[in-house]
Amino acid sequence: MKNTINVQVIGATGYGGVGIIELLMHHPNFEITSLLAKDTIGMTIDKYYPHLNKLSSLPIKETSEDTIGENCDIIIFATPDTVATDILSSIYKNKIHKKIKVVDFSGDFRFSSENHYKEYAEKHPKIDQSKLQVSEFLNESVYGLPELYKQQIEKTSLVGNPGCFAVSMILGLAPLNSKKIIDTKRVTIDAVTGTSGAGKTLSEVLHFSNMENNYIPYRALDHQHVTEVKKVVSDVGNSIESLHFVPHLIPVTRGIMSTIHVSLLEKTSEDKLLNIFQEYYASAPFVRVSDKLPTIKNVRGSNYCDISLKVDESGEHAVIFSAIDNLLKGQSGNALQCMNIMFGLEETTGLEKPPLYP
Amino acid sequence: MKNTINVQVIGATGYGGVGIIELLMHHPNFEITSLLAKDTIGMTIDKYYPHLNKLSSLPIKETSEDTIGENCDIIIFATPDTVATDILSSIYKNKIHKKIKVVDFSGDFRFSSENHYKEYAEKHPKIDQSKLQVSEFLNESVYGLPELYKQQIEKTSLVGNPGCFAVSMILGLAPLNSKKIIDTKRVTIDAVTGTSGAGKTLSEVLHFSNMENNYIPYRALDHQHVTEVKKVVSDVGNSIESLHFVPHLIPVTRGIMSTIHVSLLEKTSEDKLLNIFQEYYASAPFVRVSDKLPTIKNVRGSNYCDISLKVDESGEHAVIFSAIDNLLKGQSGNALQCMNIMFGLEETTGLEKPPLYP
Amino acid sequence: MKNTINVQVIGATGYGGVGIIELLMHHPNFEITSLLAKDTIGMTIDKYYPHLNKLSSLPIKETSEDTIGENCDIIIFATPDTVATDILSSIYKNKIHKKIKVVDFSGDFRFSSENHYKEYAEKHPKIDQSKLQVSEFLNESVYGLPELYKQQIEKTSLVGNPGCFAVSMILGLAPLNSKKIIDTKRVTIDAVTGTSGAGKTLSEVLHFSNMENNYIPYRALDHQHVTEVKKVVSDVGNSIESLHFVPHLIPVTRGIMSTIHVSLLEKTSEDKLLNIFQEYYASAPFVRVSDKLPTIKNVRGSNYCDISLKVDESGEHAVIFSAIDNLLKGQSGNALQCMNIMFGLEETTGLEKPPLYP
Amino acid sequence: MKNTINVQVIGATGYGGVGIIELLMHHPNFEITSLLAKDTIGMTIDKYYPHLNKLSSLPIKETSEDTIGENCDIIIFATPDTVATDILSSIYKNKIHKKIKVVDFSGDFRFSSENHYKEYAEKHPKIDQSKLQVSEFLNESVYGLPELYKQQIEKTSLVGNPGCFAVSMILGLAPLNSKKIIDTKRVTIDAVTGTSGAGKTLSEVLHFSNMENNYIPYRALDHQHVTEVKKVVSDVGNSIESLHFVPHLIPVTRGIMSTIHVSLLEKTSEDKLLNIFQEYYASAPFVRVSDKLPTIKNVRGSNYCDISLKVDESGEHAVIFSAIDNLLKGQSGNALQCMNIMFGLEETTGLEKPPLYP
Repeated sequence: MKNTINVQVIGATGYGGVGIIELLMHHPNFEITSLLAKDTIGMTIDKYYPHLNKLSSLPIKETSEDTIGENCDIIIFATPDTVATDILSSIYKNKIHKKIKVVDFSGDFRFSSENHYKEYAEKHPKIDQSKLQVSEFLNESVYGLPELYKQQIEKTSLVGNPGCFAVSMILGLAPLNSKKIIDTKRVTIDAVTGTSGAGKTLSEVLHFSNMENNYIPYRALDHQHVTEVKKVVSDVGNSIESLHFVPHLIPVTRGIMSTIHVSLLEKTSEDKLLNIFQEYYASAPFVRVSDKLPTIKNVRGSNYCDISLKVDESGEHAVIFSAIDNLLKGQSGNALQCMNIMFGLEETTGLEKPPLYP
Repeated sequence: MKNTINVQVIGATGYGGVGIIELLMHHPNFEITSLLAKDTIGMTIDKYYPHLNKLSSLPIKETSEDTIGENCDIIIFATPDTVATDILSSIYKNKIHKKIKVVDFSGDFRFSSENHYKEYAEKHPKIDQSKLQVSEFLNESVYGLPELYKQQIEKTSLVGNPGCFAVSMILGLAPLNSKKIIDTKRVTIDAVTGTSGAGKTLSEVLHFSNMENNYIPYRALDHQHVTEVKKVVSDVGNSIESLHFVPHLIPVTRGIMSTIHVSLLEKTSEDKLLNIFQEYYASAPFVRVSDKLPTIKNVRGSNYCDISLKVDESGEHAVIFSAIDNLLKGQSGNALQCMNIMFGLEETTGLEKPPLYP
Repeated sequence: MKNTINVQVIGATGYGGVGIIELLMHHPNFEITSLLAKDTIGMTIDKYYPHLNKLSSLPIKETSEDTIGENCDIIIFATPDTVATDILSSIYKNKIHKKIKVVDFSGDFRFSSENHYKEYAEKHPKIDQSKLQVSEFLNESVYGLPELYKQQIEKTSLVGNPGCFAVSMILGLAPLNSKKIIDTKRVTIDAVTGTSGAGKTLSEVLHFSNMENNYIPYRALDHQHVTEVKKVVSDVGNSIESLHFVPHLIPVTRGIMSTIHVSLLEKTSEDKLLNIFQEYYASAPFVRVSDKLPTIKNVRGSNYCDISLKVDESGEHAVIFSAIDNLLKGQSGNALQCMNIMFGLEETTGLEKPPLYP
Repeated sequence: MKNTINVQVIGATGYGGVGIIELLMHHPNFEITSLLAKDTIGMTIDKYYPHLNKLSSLPIKETSEDTIGENCDIIIFATPDTVATDILSSIYKNKIHKKIKVVDFSGDFRFSSENHYKEYAEKHPKIDQSKLQVSEFLNESVYGLPELYKQQIEKTSLVGNPGCFAVSMILGLAPLNSKKIIDTKRVTIDAVTGTSGAGKTLSEVLHFSNMENNYIPYRALDHQHVTEVKKVVSDVGNSIESLHFVPHLIPVTRGIMSTIHVSLLEKTSEDKLLNIFQEYYASAPFVRVSDKLPTIKNVRGSNYCDISLKVDESGEHAVIFSAIDNLLKGQSGNALQCMNIMFGLEETTGLEKPPLYP
């Protein structure tokens, strides 16, 4: 007999929402019992997303006190920053606290300390600083990156799903810092992201005529994901003192690659560094370490993170490449990995689909 | 107890080969027991296709008398035209005829009559006409389009998997012709295909710098798939006397859409025509008829064929739109659908994954 | 001594506006004296369009009674439908009629008869039908397609620049209809356009994540450009009774190709048809007839229209391919060609730049 | 009276060749008198490149002792590495030395010292090391970057046109190093290039189905252009001791952007750094310094290099962004700029066309 775990998705019509809907569609253990959103109420999800025709006709319901937490064992907040905090502070507290698990896709629960959260939130371009609110449940939350915090995820009821860039950067940096062999004063990262990272919100930048055949750096040295990367990577080794990060938009829809430059504290060979990665991720089913440089297309549509590296002739400078699908390992795929762990299921359940190549 | 069905894939390193490998990877009934190719012998498939790292490490073996048919219940020929005919005439005959089922991705077994095959083969730009050979098993073969020939596929051991353009055109034309309401003297089809339809063979046309931001008509009024479309569509209604088809390359990797113009023998409303399609495909799990025009991205990465149509003000001219992923419903997905049927499994097994959107 | 012709551009910040600005930048005879728009007033054009940095710092002025027609010999209306009609009815009449020439990019002056204009305007999705107004100057206007109406353009003060799809279709259809050798009851056209045809207005369809790797038919059998195509092509031969047109969006920014199917009234060879085109366009500097099929990239960034054709085995069905850059030969390039003619200059002045390939 | 300068192009059918042909087509001073190649002899250039139909019908001639240097004042070698050295050593010496000027697109003449050349050549993946030959004319050559070496270019007969990545990197690094304010031990550059940088040679990587929606790092920390960047940038200030460079392919055809990280020797504001760039390029017509980050599309199709920068909160780390069209400012456009200077013409002649946007 299958024990079905009931799932509610809030924010069902964004890319994050549809991502988790698709993953749960044929999952052997989870079943979506309700979809909540703030508009298109009453429409079924396949009318909103015609690619889901014949796959799901769940109705989209209003997000209200009545519907939130209704008939579910876990709520997925596929919502922008601050939404989950707002809802949990009013409703969760009385009604559902500790009875219903939560995974939030925004930054609301990525930090267990108020200071870290504020540092993050102040850099976030979409958070109204005047209304900034710190959740009272912050200290119960766990950073939802299974490769580093699997045991904590097993025990928590409240997971803050990592930022997409952060997943790519942390998985690329953690192993070497865990060995304390990189200069934590000089980490430089240039990363690229597909346009889906910016979601469905229309903008001149993302207008097809502008974006195709283009390459667009933005928010250079000023991105909010740096806070969580520094905090998490510091957790596993030396404290990261300086991390310079520049994101760029590329004309692809899905994918993130981080090109991470580190100075090695002593000369080290490529093979030795690769071994460190291999060992660090020996029991991580979705990290694939290789001596071949990764590409975005080799991970697109899958939950894998592909990692490789190069060392220069001096042996003192390494470049680590870390590639993910921003909507899967960078969002809903990673969330499902956490959900599997939170409910004692096999970590990989429902996630082993191959990348879409070509 | 699961009765595993063993599968051999010949031509494992082309897009067709990797397509069927990916689909069978987590199929509950089929298991690939050997991959044959003509080069890269000894390499494992994940070395050849790094996106399959951690997913499959099956070795690629030589295609030889010893390996062909070895330890399998079915052979998939993901090979160019004439290869299956050659192999079957020499080996199949003595060794494996009727014991092992066969699905061939090329045109070798799409026709049960020699005349039709020759008409097709003479138009094929890659068949060496001087060596043209008609298989002695032609009359045993079934055209592998489950939406039209499910019962025949159930009983046969030899399936000719349809051409990718043909799938799209036939599914768009069959319902109205089955009602005998279109003028069979004037069918006009403009279709577009993604570049993966041309496979992995390098060419100036498909060089990225040429192909991106481009749109390229080719082989206008002279494509070999027309033969099978006319034959199959005629089978279900009136004989198609004239079908003008122009294929075009678009700068996408996966996807085919056919824009099919027909003259209606009498005034008919859009609703009535949509009803005919709905009824015709009432029991076809992978055809999605809708009153919204299809797009390629809504089917990409899935086995669905999305169909819609428009009728002009006069009520005498209809345009039918039919979209598929050329590598799935146009190739390996359709082949698996046939395989499921040939072995008495549920037609949809292993095929219900949603399109990759966005 | 150079006699400078002063130009005012209204609607300077759209793709049409910037297109004509770029072409006039180094033109030996024309000089832009003012740019008018409805917002971004006071900004210089290179602040609005950073790609024009160091190329033009003309200020954007308000469109008002004072500025319209100020210090210019010609006004270019790079504005949506109905804007030119509104402005001309109030201001032009008293102030500038016959003293200042006009080229309008919208459909306002593409028809000299009220009936044709209304048929067009009623199909236009962006015209508010309740406010529909027919210009009192309609009968003075000339359809600005130099390949067909050069002599009329020479003499007029008021040019209606053609629709982008219309340019491509008319240039593909006119030669054979001028010989009265096609069946005017059955013309079928499938055409594709790059996204810039829809301008700068943001939409879900044109959001990069949706549009890339996509192919999207729209307004099938219901596009307003058909009216002008039928009218103009009928002008040079038999009356076009039926023309079925389906436009599709492709994931490219610039370019239109029309694939035009015609039935030939008698068997004709490809060579003979090509000769008809060659002769018809013998003195047209921007039409390139070839026996090789055109591609969009071969015309992108230029004012050329590339045309070729195929005839089927029966000799009774021909397909004509006609490709342009929708923003140049389909808009500002064609407008400049008209302007050159209106002022007695060489038709090709400032327009002979090669396509951007690759 | 116009004094026409006659030009011979060797290697006329590559992207470099067609690039210079297009630029010279309407140049008021230069005229191409012959095109040489190694195959397609006898064909006219517009048959080879149909986008040049009606623009140029120059015949392609054999590259032989008879044709080389025939009827010309300057030879453009748009050829791979070592070709110009080979030809000049045998033919140039006796026949044309000092009578005919030379611009070479490869690395053959980018270095005046044998050591630098060898360091470069040893890293070059396409140079057969066993046949490596140093030109006897090396010491006569000038590095053809007008922004740094205009006076030397005026006087020389032999210009080595810079590498495309090198142009972008040098223009981004030279100003700050000329002020000696960056730490020359730690320069880190991640750059991206469009696929045309790899020319017309077919490869699996550049096959459209692989390249679109992809992002591919390659030759990390091991690219031959680093040698010329370090040498040239060192020339204007402190010696660059360490420069870590990682190139990546992006799915665009034209464009390079370098993201250059430098440590500042003392705290400096963004404004001050921008001023340094503004001053350094005050008389450089094709460098556009701005406080807005550049994009590739804003320079595509033009000879401009767009530069901007950001400084972090500490004031000690700067990122410089430098964008060019790799085929224009990165190749033929820059070459024409040199040619103009070599013949005493205005540097910008024939080069002021705006970028193709959108």
